[in-house]
Amino acid sequence: MQRSVFFLSDRTGITAEALGHSLLTQFEGIEFDQVTLPFIDSREKAYQAIERINEAARVDGVKPLLFSTLINSELRELVAEKSVGLMFDFFDTFINPLELELGRMSSHAVGRSHGMGTYAQYKARIDAVNFALSNDDGVSTRGFPQADIILVGVSRSGKTPTCLYLALQYGIRAANYPLTEEDLDSHRLPAALHPFRQHLFGLTIDPGRLQQIRNERRANSRYSSLQQCQTEIREVETIYRKEKIPYLDTSTVSIEEIATTILLHSGLQRRIPR
Amino acid sequence: MQRSVFFLSDRTGITAEALGHSLLTQFEGIEFDQVTLPFIDSREKAYQAIERINEAARVDGVKPLLFSTLINSELRELVAEKSVGLMFDFFDTFINPLELELGRMSSHAVGRSHGMGTYAQYKARIDAVNFALSNDDGVSTRGFPQADIILVGVSRSGKTPTCLYLALQYGIRAANYPLTEEDLDSHRLPAALHPFRQHLFGLTIDPGRLQQIRNERRANSRYSSLQQCQTEIREVETIYRKEKIPYLDTSTVSIEEIATTILLHSGLQRRIPR
Repeated sequence: MQRSVFFLSDRTGITAEALGHSLLTQFEGIEFDQVTLPFIDSREKAYQAIERINEAARVDGVKPLLFSTLINSELRELVAEKSVGLMFDFFDTFINPLELELGRMSSHAVGRSHGMGTYAQYKARIDAVNFALSNDDGVSTRGFPQADIILVGVSRSGKTPTCLYLALQYGIRAANYPLTEEDLDSHRLPAALHPFRQHLFGLTIDPGRLQQIRNERRANSRYSSLQQCQTEIREVETIYRKEKIPYLDTSTVSIEEIATTILLHSGLQRRIPR
Repeated sequence: MQRSVFFLSDRTGITAEALGHSLLTQFEGIEFDQVTLPFIDSREKAYQAIERINEAARVDGVKPLLFSTLINSELRELVAEKSVGLMFDFFDTFINPLELELGRMSSHAVGRSHGMGTYAQYKARIDAVNFALSNDDGVSTRGFPQADIILVGVSRSGKTPTCLYLALQYGIRAANYPLTEEDLDSHRLPAALHPFRQHLFGLTIDPGRLQQIRNERRANSRYSSLQQCQTEIREVETIYRKEKIPYLDTSTVSIEEIATTILLHSGLQRRIPR
């Protein structure tokens, strides 16, 4: 059985996708054919959306599910009335009770979420991305005094994507520093990191998973052998414990979860608003 | 007037934040004190959340607003009953009508959204990030034959953050190539890009905004002069039109909006699910 799903938005559709997806993942065994229709900001685009929805209904023989964050009430009502889809309206459902509680009308202005925001916010975000790129993989530690957080861990434990995500999502200036075999053999934190001890956060990972990841990069090498991965992980965790560095096992968590955990644990303030 | 707002989640809270924020931005003139409480996955953590909410209510003298994507119904009900906050329940509101329409019960399983997904999905994402890093800023064009999309534009027009966002959010392999003064003077696409013409997407930007951004980097230089920015933008747009390269003005749009527009325009399929 196939069921078409449409994510409808005045803007990017990212919020509609995220919430719709978290609802759909509760239903196993149904094949959802998911389509995002972003930037529905005119009657013309609303009619195009209606046409696609109704066509999908004809093909499937069942009502498509519509997850909408449409803010423009005229366009929202147009889609709800003229399409045969079943609308789950993430905006309209909550805006009225919210108006009631706050004692004022909403502005119904489109484009405030995921919009440009102020130039200062844009700049905070871009600066954080550039910071992550300039302070990646231990290439340079010159920026470390300006870092909000410095991720440490063995090669391929997830440091770089996490730093980039922290930058893009939260505007956090995140550096990272790989702990090499030499560092691990010494059973000590590298001297370069001593001044920044309070800003360190460690990543660790299941040795089997690490082997799998490293094998994609350099197959059948010492680097990607299970024994090497086991040794490195054992030693890096010993250093974390000895040096009292907070750390997280990234084996079964997403980049979003790693980043959120670091934010929560460190108490860091995001530089770009929600 | 201050109003406390809590985003409550079993997992990262990112979805609750996004939808809650898009609702709150409809109300100007109210100062919202926003706190995210992620990973509420035990009765103990639920009670800690209740305590924070009730404390905020005492301080503010008004009910805090709670935006929740809590999936665990026991914890959700605990917070709704024991806290004095007003709950906007993004999960519970929609799961019942969805069960009704789909004709089956939901699994109420936590952690499927923003979770690890399969190893294949994780790998697609990490590979896309690595691809963006290896094919950034024209350093190398060796990966271009594998690129899903190649962003072109003058220095500081937003190419790198957009590539990284496309990688993290969609698993898209995005390269970028800066169009230099030399390229612009020749009024032609650089030869290195000719084989990839079908995969090019141009970025442009308001010259005044470009000057502002460049000035942060190299103040009072020729590079950041308004005249230089105006000339480069005029010439780059001429090339886009002449070579029929689709392009987007990034001056007033967010990275999310640029990325979504590129996805929509190019018809590229995301490599990681919603």
